[in-house]
Amino acid sequence: MKLFAGCELLYDVPAPAPLVLMLRPRSGAGQWIISEEYQIEPNIPVVEYTDLYGNLCQRLVAPEGSFSVQISLVAETADRIDVAPGAPFVPVQDLPDDVLQFLLPSRYCQSDRLGPLAVDIIGDATPGYDQVEAIRSWIQSHITYQYGTSDASTSAVDTAEKRTGVCRDFAHLGISLCRSLNIPARMVVGYLYQLKPMDLHAWFEAFVDGRWYTFDATQQEPRGNRIVVAYGRDAADVALATQYGAMTLTEMNVWVEEKI
Amino acid sequence: MKLFAGCELLYDVPAPAPLVLMLRPRSGAGQWIISEEYQIEPNIPVVEYTDLYGNLCQRLVAPEGSFSVQISLVAETADRIDVAPGAPFVPVQDLPDDVLQFLLPSRYCQSDRLGPLAVDIIGDATPGYDQVEAIRSWIQSHITYQYGTSDASTSAVDTAEKRTGVCRDFAHLGISLCRSLNIPARMVVGYLYQLKPMDLHAWFEAFVDGRWYTFDATQQEPRGNRIVVAYGRDAADVALATQYGAMTLTEMNVWVEEKI
Amino acid sequence: MKLFAGCELLYDVPAPAPLVLMLRPRSGAGQWIISEEYQIEPNIPVVEYTDLYGNLCQRLVAPEGSFSVQISLVAETADRIDVAPGAPFVPVQDLPDDVLQFLLPSRYCQSDRLGPLAVDIIGDATPGYDQVEAIRSWIQSHITYQYGTSDASTSAVDTAEKRTGVCRDFAHLGISLCRSLNIPARMVVGYLYQLKPMDLHAWFEAFVDGRWYTFDATQQEPRGNRIVVAYGRDAADVALATQYGAMTLTEMNVWVEEKI
Amino acid sequence: MKLFAGCELLYDVPAPAPLVLMLRPRSGAGQWIISEEYQIEPNIPVVEYTDLYGNLCQRLVAPEGSFSVQISLVAETADRIDVAPGAPFVPVQDLPDDVLQFLLPSRYCQSDRLGPLAVDIIGDATPGYDQVEAIRSWIQSHITYQYGTSDASTSAVDTAEKRTGVCRDFAHLGISLCRSLNIPARMVVGYLYQLKPMDLHAWFEAFVDGRWYTFDATQQEPRGNRIVVAYGRDAADVALATQYGAMTLTEMNVWVEEKI
Repeated sequence: MKLFAGCELLYDVPAPAPLVLMLRPRSGAGQWIISEEYQIEPNIPVVEYTDLYGNLCQRLVAPEGSFSVQISLVAETADRIDVAPGAPFVPVQDLPDDVLQFLLPSRYCQSDRLGPLAVDIIGDATPGYDQVEAIRSWIQSHITYQYGTSDASTSAVDTAEKRTGVCRDFAHLGISLCRSLNIPARMVVGYLYQLKPMDLHAWFEAFVDGRWYTFDATQQEPRGNRIVVAYGRDAADVALATQYGAMTLTEMNVWVEEKI
Repeated sequence: MKLFAGCELLYDVPAPAPLVLMLRPRSGAGQWIISEEYQIEPNIPVVEYTDLYGNLCQRLVAPEGSFSVQISLVAETADRIDVAPGAPFVPVQDLPDDVLQFLLPSRYCQSDRLGPLAVDIIGDATPGYDQVEAIRSWIQSHITYQYGTSDASTSAVDTAEKRTGVCRDFAHLGISLCRSLNIPARMVVGYLYQLKPMDLHAWFEAFVDGRWYTFDATQQEPRGNRIVVAYGRDAADVALATQYGAMTLTEMNVWVEEKI
Repeated sequence: MKLFAGCELLYDVPAPAPLVLMLRPRSGAGQWIISEEYQIEPNIPVVEYTDLYGNLCQRLVAPEGSFSVQISLVAETADRIDVAPGAPFVPVQDLPDDVLQFLLPSRYCQSDRLGPLAVDIIGDATPGYDQVEAIRSWIQSHITYQYGTSDASTSAVDTAEKRTGVCRDFAHLGISLCRSLNIPARMVVGYLYQLKPMDLHAWFEAFVDGRWYTFDATQQEPRGNRIVVAYGRDAADVALATQYGAMTLTEMNVWVEEKI
Repeated sequence: MKLFAGCELLYDVPAPAPLVLMLRPRSGAGQWIISEEYQIEPNIPVVEYTDLYGNLCQRLVAPEGSFSVQISLVAETADRIDVAPGAPFVPVQDLPDDVLQFLLPSRYCQSDRLGPLAVDIIGDATPGYDQVEAIRSWIQSHITYQYGTSDASTSAVDTAEKRTGVCRDFAHLGISLCRSLNIPARMVVGYLYQLKPMDLHAWFEAFVDGRWYTFDATQQEPRGNRIVVAYGRDAADVALATQYGAMTLTEMNVWVEEKI
């Protein structure tokens, strides 16, 4: 399905402050960016670089006063995500070099502390895809989705304890549990068609049977029509806007519609 | 100035054949891509990757029959390119690691064979920017710009002998002469406002005084309003379309206009 | 001073298990590896790759039974580390692209939670080097160096609370406090001449005035004669041995001597 | 077999001049560097970086006077190289992204001009390994190995015409012919046990059936016991010593022996 998606960020900036945005998606295996419009107001210089994960990052200094960023996209997306029950675990020694980093613990994914929980959850699921699906399903049924119960410091260990959170927390917990089983897992942020309520979204991918598969613990069914904006180890790597100063985000709008 | 630019490539494809395109410009220090629309007809899967120079490359298999690619852009560009008479040569030992590769000879830039000519051209110009400008100016006045006198195999050595060529040959010669003096130089392909006749364009950059400067031996005056599409060692790296089969490019249109 | 350094790891391996070692130092600006000998017993296939930070990593599957790894080095090292009182803070917008990642929180360095402590510590120190030195000095005088009070899960937040730890915890706390002030900081593991008691060591580097400076909160005076083995965001990135199975490290020896 | 190998370069340097060396091999899939000793006399600062192909490069400024570089290695090497008659051609669309660059023409490998010769040579060999072997075998029987008939500017087109050259020319021709058939090929420099006369050596690798295979057109039989020092597109990328000044190489010694 062709999607028309985008977001608008409005800031109130008391004094000029650096900002790093990660809002320009890449075309890739699963998606094709047909068109894109990226506006910054007032019009100031922006430089773009590619981070370690291949994400395009926009650097700027937000000027004092009202400041807005808007990006809109038309993208071809897959209507279905691949599911692969039974797809096997990849032994660590057979993982590609550049996948190994997604086994390590990270800021919000303390996989070194969640091994026992993971072992409880997976039971005797077949190593690989089925274990990840058991984790995803467990999170969906055991963690309550609720705004305001977590914040920018909340980690997977916190979420495992409190059993409540939002999409980002669900993803962090899923990633951590996978890594504790030596299954590489990474964070994804992006857009999801018909997400309710509409917002930017986060989910995760796990590496089994030689490739990355998509898992979303906030959804009951596997759902396609996603636009990936950025990949990383966890939310620290893929913040869509990282500000280094006192600016306030006064408004944020997100839209994802079918493009006819 | 805001530019509206783009190009359209029409192919006749007798049998499915792989094609690598390099048509999606990056936002960067000197340019900001405000909007972009990239269409491929018929609609087939495309994957994108980043090459060694940071260029975005689109891989696809062109299907049998008529096949078209169209990209249009709106970009903010600098009205003037920086010029820096007297800017000094950077000794090789002080060059950044990732700039060193632009000292090496390459397919179309046999800098190992053009040292004597370079020495003749530069006379007693100050090492650095002034030498590059002497080279650029010499090319502009000594090489005749003429279509049909060179082809995809023509190298800088050929151009130095025949004294005729097109923008790509001018750039290759400039690059080779710079490298023979241990000045790093790289190829740029992209769009230039008011180029006559309108076409995709090629020029070069040289590294002096700690940064890259733009040089265009096809133009009498330094001119801004350029959109860089790709960087590389020479045309082998930055072909906007590399085909691995018998398809025929039947039509190509390029446009660059002021966007009002 | 020329150092002769190295380490030996002895494992008891109940069943074949993957192991990633990071024991081969790189030659670089501050050190030159004159000679190196790297032995693995029994002799099994090893492959080496370079991770995202430029570290050389050795991948292998440890065979069942006794397994040993030994590396010894002769390296030229600097007798003094550079100190630069007053060296200025680099505003975020002026940081090199590849340094930005060292501002982000990471597994053991929750810089997002340690801002208030950092502000207390630095008082009115000049932004930049002096702030980092204030942090280093505060850690040295306020955190008690004691084995057995921390483990592989201990993070900077833990250490800030308990006020006790080992070199790795000191480094994590220093890194976190720097990052909370928007000063990029990274973890270093390696060898230090005359460390007491002798062991592998960890310290940190902070980026001020356009370059990385060395800080070691475990030492009263700035001390040179260090061999860097690996760089990373924190200990998760620079574990000298990451094992993915049940093997036991039965013995470990480390030596650093003057090479005459 | 365990090899003891190395080389010594002696220079006469009339004035300080930058030098980039590429003499430190990497451990990798096919070889393990057990020990290494790298000496530079007089003892001057050297910095090391990794180039685009993963080679370790040493940068220095050679001081006036006599200057020497010596490296010796002990390496575990494979006694046999893999041969794979019938291994299939990989269609361009299925090549890994990072292999694509080895299809492009380069300084000494003008694959864009050698297609007709390649077609003649391969006859009706099966696409893939057998075509590469036909090329290798043709070069071995049709090109005369002779010192002094080629120099640093000699390219594959020159060698195809003159039918004479040394190992580097043989490799360039092999690489060019492969690329003209859309088979990725790359240059390798290193050591070969029992090479006669002993010297540093060059050969090539071609990518078929999903991996790189070794081909050496200077040898009658496939021979193992090689130590790879560097990979690249051609000799421009893998010069073991690139000098940017007037120094003279006065002596060079190379040794490769069985290590007992």
